[in-house]
Amino acid sequence: MLTIDIARKIIAAGEARAHGIGVPANIAVLDAGTSLKAFARMDGVLLGSIDITLGKARTAALFGKRTEAIGEFCKPGGTSPGLEQTNGGLVVFARGLPLIDAGGSLIGAVGVSGGAVAQDLDIAEAAVAALGN
Amino acid sequence: MLTIDIARKIIAAGEARAHGIGVPANIAVLDAGTSLKAFARMDGVLLGSIDITLGKARTAALFGKRTEAIGEFCKPGGTSPGLEQTNGGLVVFARGLPLIDAGGSLIGAVGVSGGAVAQDLDIAEAAVAALGN
Amino acid sequence: MLTIDIARKIIAAGEARAHGIGVPANIAVLDAGTSLKAFARMDGVLLGSIDITLGKARTAALFGKRTEAIGEFCKPGGTSPGLEQTNGGLVVFARGLPLIDAGGSLIGAVGVSGGAVAQDLDIAEAAVAALGN
Amino acid sequence: MLTIDIARKIIAAGEARAHGIGVPANIAVLDAGTSLKAFARMDGVLLGSIDITLGKARTAALFGKRTEAIGEFCKPGGTSPGLEQTNGGLVVFARGLPLIDAGGSLIGAVGVSGGAVAQDLDIAEAAVAALGN
Repeated sequence: MLTIDIARKIIAAGEARAHGIGVPANIAVLDAGTSLKAFARMDGVLLGSIDITLGKARTAALFGKRTEAIGEFCKPGGTSPGLEQTNGGLVVFARGLPLIDAGGSLIGAVGVSGGAVAQDLDIAEAAVAALGN
Repeated sequence: MLTIDIARKIIAAGEARAHGIGVPANIAVLDAGTSLKAFARMDGVLLGSIDITLGKARTAALFGKRTEAIGEFCKPGGTSPGLEQTNGGLVVFARGLPLIDAGGSLIGAVGVSGGAVAQDLDIAEAAVAALGN
Repeated sequence: MLTIDIARKIIAAGEARAHGIGVPANIAVLDAGTSLKAFARMDGVLLGSIDITLGKARTAALFGKRTEAIGEFCKPGGTSPGLEQTNGGLVVFARGLPLIDAGGSLIGAVGVSGGAVAQDLDIAEAAVAALGN
Repeated sequence: MLTIDIARKIIAAGEARAHGIGVPANIAVLDAGTSLKAFARMDGVLLGSIDITLGKARTAALFGKRTEAIGEFCKPGGTSPGLEQTNGGLVVFARGLPLIDAGGSLIGAVGVSGGAVAQDLDIAEAAVAALGN
């Protein structure tokens, strides 16, 4: 189960990585029911990325998958055109990641936004690694 | 100006007080433009209070006043009936507080929700006190 | 018909009065179809009053009446309870004023928000007087 | 920081250019937090362009970039498909421009709509040039 202590560790790990690569980012942690657990916007992040961060985390929590994997379903030629319009609107580009506990259960999701896609990836991977599985 | 370090100090101070009185709460910190800066949901808080927390902080940031002072304007017989319906819906009960810096400028707002009104007050006052003015 | 020149004169007259009484305000001018024609937010106005200003002007344009007159219809005991919920939400407290041309036709509306009710009134009356009827 | 005097100079410069090329336009100026500061709709502009004008300015303020640069991210094959659906809906075609002060800080944005894309560009460039950096 996702606790505030875990959420805080995830954000701290993501921020440490963001500092390391010199890219400010938002990090959002949602629980398995898609409710907001913790959020931090580092100094210098553009305001437009707040909603994107929350949307990535929400999308990953709703489907238990990385957002870009969900993007595969709805891209031209994919199996589920228009999927991104469901659930009040999804964010289907990187970097939202599901949080899976040691027993394999989905306990929430993390969203990261602020830099380029590869940078957000870097930060999100570091954040999720704090789960310690 | 509101930095993530200040926002984190505000949340930490609020949480310490919440632990002290044994009441879990959400604490949201918004900047002066009403954009989310940081948020934490302590373990055990009811989900319905997340939106309330954000709404209190947003209302206090929009008007630079405590939410309950805004409630005075729109209560029966007040000067501005229906004010609570503006701005996409306000939350006009305690406890949203404006963040005023040492120079008297509005730099954001804090919202607290989770306990009874008096408990939320306690936590919010402790949170804002971390600003150190 | 409401031109941008007239709208600008209305805003300038309102701002002059606002400067005169030392109260910053927003002034919005809408046409008879409720579409935005011109808007100015003086320095120091709280952000929450932007939506209120637009809402007052829209309400006055929709009904061709001062907003507080519309408020009479929907107050407890009035003829039209819930009127304020129609049209996507009305603002039924002072100060939105209809703009009536010399021939008696409704050509738009002005909304003012920023100060206390009496101050907003003062500014709005000065603004509308610039129509010169 | 964006003052009403600066906003008015920006609009005046844009309108002068619009008159010069014989194309009426809307010009919107927003602050860095995306709140409306000033707006003018010249006579003869189609009503549908009001929302577009505001949307362009809001999009440029949210991301600190020209709207068409944001459009690059979400076009087919771009890094962020569906980006235009975030933040309640973005306007990702020309011409919304960020306002950057002499120190390099984002202080707001301008949106222009009314003519063809190249005409809106002309007007928007003239408007932003009034900042004088």
